[in-house]
Amino acid sequence: MNKKVVLTGDRSTGKLHLGHYVGSLANRLKMQDEYKQFVMIADMQALTDHAEKPELIRNSVMEVMLDYLAVGLDPKKTTILLQSMIPELSELTMYYLNLVTWNRLKHNPTVKQEIKQKNFGESVPAGFMVYPVFQAADITAFKADIVPVGDDQLPMIEQTNEIVRKFNRIYKKEILKEAKAITPQIARLPGIDGNAKMSKSLNNAIYLSDEADVLVKKVKSMFTDSNHLRVEDPGKVEGNPVFVYLDAFAKDTKKVNEMKEHYQKGGLGDMVCKKYLIEVLEDFLSPIREKRKELEKDKKYVLDVLLKGSIEAKKTASQTLKEVKEAMHLISA
Amino acid sequence: MNKKVVLTGDRSTGKLHLGHYVGSLANRLKMQDEYKQFVMIADMQALTDHAEKPELIRNSVMEVMLDYLAVGLDPKKTTILLQSMIPELSELTMYYLNLVTWNRLKHNPTVKQEIKQKNFGESVPAGFMVYPVFQAADITAFKADIVPVGDDQLPMIEQTNEIVRKFNRIYKKEILKEAKAITPQIARLPGIDGNAKMSKSLNNAIYLSDEADVLVKKVKSMFTDSNHLRVEDPGKVEGNPVFVYLDAFAKDTKKVNEMKEHYQKGGLGDMVCKKYLIEVLEDFLSPIREKRKELEKDKKYVLDVLLKGSIEAKKTASQTLKEVKEAMHLISA
Repeated sequence: MNKKVVLTGDRSTGKLHLGHYVGSLANRLKMQDEYKQFVMIADMQALTDHAEKPELIRNSVMEVMLDYLAVGLDPKKTTILLQSMIPELSELTMYYLNLVTWNRLKHNPTVKQEIKQKNFGESVPAGFMVYPVFQAADITAFKADIVPVGDDQLPMIEQTNEIVRKFNRIYKKEILKEAKAITPQIARLPGIDGNAKMSKSLNNAIYLSDEADVLVKKVKSMFTDSNHLRVEDPGKVEGNPVFVYLDAFAKDTKKVNEMKEHYQKGGLGDMVCKKYLIEVLEDFLSPIREKRKELEKDKKYVLDVLLKGSIEAKKTASQTLKEVKEAMHLISA
Repeated sequence: MNKKVVLTGDRSTGKLHLGHYVGSLANRLKMQDEYKQFVMIADMQALTDHAEKPELIRNSVMEVMLDYLAVGLDPKKTTILLQSMIPELSELTMYYLNLVTWNRLKHNPTVKQEIKQKNFGESVPAGFMVYPVFQAADITAFKADIVPVGDDQLPMIEQTNEIVRKFNRIYKKEILKEAKAITPQIARLPGIDGNAKMSKSLNNAIYLSDEADVLVKKVKSMFTDSNHLRVEDPGKVEGNPVFVYLDAFAKDTKKVNEMKEHYQKGGLGDMVCKKYLIEVLEDFLSPIREKRKELEKDKKYVLDVLLKGSIEAKKTASQTLKEVKEAMHLISA
């Protein structure tokens, strides 16, 4: 039986951090054994709101590749591809754009929220407004069955499936496939500043590539429970980043549970908890960091993985485009 | 010295008519001797407002090709290409979309006017809204120096040149070239119903492929001067379609001038003028019609001209895309 296809990916706008690990990378490591998994580095999507920073995007492609391989994505099991190397995605987008009204794009909830967050005002790039359609091209090109997304991205999958249904109806062939969104169990890791989201732009992230001393500094500066002033005070563990991180990364759940109880009763200081978190995260990060350093010595190999993956992915996308063009009565070369 | 490059083309939404001849084809026959001329059959652009009529577009590609070759476009001098065979145009569009604001697209005067004409209301396809950017891809891909357009299309060329300037500024390379719009002398032939524009959708066109009997019928039904009721009445020649057509197609200008004088004085009947126009148009159309019939017997050859032209054009577009991607620090395969 054919494996189900899963498509995921990241924009190439910087190194990956613990939030990426919890929100998606951990899941990909599991999925690569059970699914035909495509992981896309979305450099073209990154350009939709970073058109003036091409060097950042170029450099981030390599950083993300290093993170992927260091964390354990296995090129034998996962096809890693670079979006800009698959011209078929642009062609599909052009055809799909005719199946979506301008009005519909304008009211996409995800895009509306992002426009607000990014303070675009009146100068939203057209490329940013149409990226839900571009994403539909990504998903359909690989005939993905499953797309893991955060809750906030669900409208994007709905937009894709609308295009799929409209395409199949107008062109009278069941060529494109609707995708199912799955949302990860822990969607989001808070930042070290207590902000609900860890992100580069908020400058509150612990990176997969952070050195041990940087890790120590960041954990020591972490936000905890702001009412937990003295060691003997009872403290809150819900939403306390230190405990959220421990839940996500500590293997010794018994010990974490004991610490939580102690913390809630009072008598357990933040620094003790942080020291344990440093230990836990260092155990998690040090092999990744080591492997990343090894890989950095052979960037040609890393790039080669990406090129080979892209060539393989291009074959699938090219087959889909061929079917799409045939259904549309277009002339193929 | 290198020849200057000119890019023109037609959407594949039906056969070509006398309006196309006067407005653009006649000019292309002249330009093919002096310029490096690309003539594009814009099937993808046709899809932006005909997404639900793929068969019409497919069939029209062949009709337009037959018209082109029958009228005298020479594949040795003119590169005829099919837009959907040049994926580079879609890729360039995706990159250019990031350089144009959504707001700017919304206020494109040509697009605004066309939305009105087409009665799109709230359901304008996104593909239709972004087509000025797609057109910028067409023009820049071939590094066109000159683009012949009607007055109403001037804002499209301005949009292209805005993208060119922004691209070259942001990516710090003078890769893209600004294009110069030229407007033809006689921009527009009226319809046989007196409407200012001859067009398929208005059902007032004489086609290059019309049979002799169809031509006779259409000319006999032509609108003239509605105040010229009796033969002895003085008639108007300005804006009178019969005389506009004679000006455009009759070789014997002396005779036309004499007829105009007579018509204005009174005493020259519409039917006499129309009979002469039938003679003139039949002289013009019969060799085109004959050649078209010959070509129809060998559609493989006709398609081959299009495929060869597209392959040649793809080389140019591919080179431009390579330069564009390099300037943007993107990884090329």
